[in-house]
Amino acid sequence: MADETVLLGHGSGGTMMKRIIDDVFAATYGSEELAQGNDAALLPAPAPGERLAFSTDTFVVTPHFFPGGNIGRLAVCGTVNDVATSGAKVKYLSVAMVLEEGFPMDDLRRICETIREVAAEAGVHVVTGDTKVVNRGHGDGIYINTAGVGLVPAGVELSGANCKPGDAILLSGTLGDHGICIMSQRENLSFNAPIESDAAPLNGLIADVLAAAPDTRCFRDPTRGGLASTLNELGAQSGVDMVVSEDDVPVKNVVRGACDMLGYDVFQVANEGKMVCIVPAEQTEAALAAMKANKYGADAAIIGRVEEADETRGPKVFLETGFGSRRILDMLVGEQLPRIC
Amino acid sequence: MADETVLLGHGSGGTMMKRIIDDVFAATYGSEELAQGNDAALLPAPAPGERLAFSTDTFVVTPHFFPGGNIGRLAVCGTVNDVATSGAKVKYLSVAMVLEEGFPMDDLRRICETIREVAAEAGVHVVTGDTKVVNRGHGDGIYINTAGVGLVPAGVELSGANCKPGDAILLSGTLGDHGICIMSQRENLSFNAPIESDAAPLNGLIADVLAAAPDTRCFRDPTRGGLASTLNELGAQSGVDMVVSEDDVPVKNVVRGACDMLGYDVFQVANEGKMVCIVPAEQTEAALAAMKANKYGADAAIIGRVEEADETRGPKVFLETGFGSRRILDMLVGEQLPRIC
Repeated sequence: MADETVLLGHGSGGTMMKRIIDDVFAATYGSEELAQGNDAALLPAPAPGERLAFSTDTFVVTPHFFPGGNIGRLAVCGTVNDVATSGAKVKYLSVAMVLEEGFPMDDLRRICETIREVAAEAGVHVVTGDTKVVNRGHGDGIYINTAGVGLVPAGVELSGANCKPGDAILLSGTLGDHGICIMSQRENLSFNAPIESDAAPLNGLIADVLAAAPDTRCFRDPTRGGLASTLNELGAQSGVDMVVSEDDVPVKNVVRGACDMLGYDVFQVANEGKMVCIVPAEQTEAALAAMKANKYGADAAIIGRVEEADETRGPKVFLETGFGSRRILDMLVGEQLPRIC
Repeated sequence: MADETVLLGHGSGGTMMKRIIDDVFAATYGSEELAQGNDAALLPAPAPGERLAFSTDTFVVTPHFFPGGNIGRLAVCGTVNDVATSGAKVKYLSVAMVLEEGFPMDDLRRICETIREVAAEAGVHVVTGDTKVVNRGHGDGIYINTAGVGLVPAGVELSGANCKPGDAILLSGTLGDHGICIMSQRENLSFNAPIESDAAPLNGLIADVLAAAPDTRCFRDPTRGGLASTLNELGAQSGVDMVVSEDDVPVKNVVRGACDMLGYDVFQVANEGKMVCIVPAEQTEAALAAMKANKYGADAAIIGRVEEADETRGPKVFLETGFGSRRILDMLVGEQLPRIC
């Protein structure tokens, strides 16, 4: 393929579009289903009783490449993780690209190659897609939307509305790595230790935890808005308080230092490879052991507990500090770090 | 809601994002499934034997509002139609927005209200979504990605690879309305008669045709690349020639005039509310009658036939003119009209 950059014609519906689909998309992350060549992918009938899980996310991060990954890795992990939080086996992915005229074809190939790798690791097939090209100066090089479909086995009933007083709050690893990585790349800051994005597919970790702790209430990944927003959402859905012990939350020293220096609250910084998990007290140790045994859960920790909410003030999230004080951990209001995913 | 324009914070994952979701998205096209509030929508188990159909499309058209619709109408119709071509009952839609900082909130509400209307007409539920906000000067006001999931009843086997010599080619209405509408808006051209986009959900029309002509080979909507690209795709998938009789192809006079004046080939102009349908000869009249009885098929016509391809030169699409001549109808190569969907 001679084209070295993306051209408007690659989004035309004509032979140039057929070429970019065949030579770039199908050649990297193609699948049997994608090769059907119809307007919709036809997928096998689920087993009797299997429900569907469906989620979507668009990725607009800049820079497109960063330590620990690129926008393609995010695009697969983000949607795989969202679908997996339902307890689903994540099966099928759509990949829709909005490319800016002039985007380097080599960068596109690298991103597509990453999509192939991560999809293979997560065990999902890219079965359908779309390509649009916008004029130079619009878009931002590349935006990627993915939507994912999973199959939820009968009997699995996870929801953020299931949390109960007495449950434990587990976190699968260190906070803030992705957001601080992107920010430091964008601002050209360098630290003593490299900060890598944590972007990772966590469907395997979720399956491991569910096998070890089958009464797990819910999973949620603390992406935009960070842990603070995730816990506030879960607390509000279940009508309960969440109490986090600050000293128990794993944070890398270099990330903590960057947050202190720059005035970011690590509890509001985005993560792309971490999972919050609410587990009944008696299954906490089993869930933690399962997390730690997974390659993406080595730093997992029990970081807090669910408590009854005060009826008059409504559900809140509290942070207990090492000095014995308690402060309210609010949801992020506006934008701390734009374009991190 | 006081915010009059979209701000970066509306994509933050925090309380501002919660507000735009609650007050704009859920308030217009919300559904019971969207209200679950988890990271993935949990959807009922399909009936035994029902297969899944899955498709996606991103919409980047400018202008966002045009005679006959807006980007929201396109975003629903485009994906509904793609999923419906598989013979599926179209059930679930994701809506993922990329908004530019400063986009007027009133325009967003109008677009969301349209999404609600068209989704209701098509009988699909918006069950999951995503919101990203990009900096001023990036994106292009609004991009919308939709992905759709449908359920294909047992026994329905449609594919572009099914076409056989002797089959008839049906078209559900006039060619070129959408592409010429967008182009004339963008270039500020005015014609004697108004040109409206044909954007329409065609899942009902497809169901009607399938009921009347159960051995229908396939459906495909001639969007980007127009009828020429669609027929070339189908011909290549099935290894057959497609022969179109020019005089039988319905085209509005004003669209034909605009194409002549501007040098566009109407066979390569995009449509957003038309369906090509390949039907075995003996069911042609039944399929045509079903199309004509549908509100979106009044101008339907039999426009050609499938023929055996010459083994040495491979499948081709031919246009037979009124003067008895035959010319090859090629696939669009590059870009005729950018940003039309």
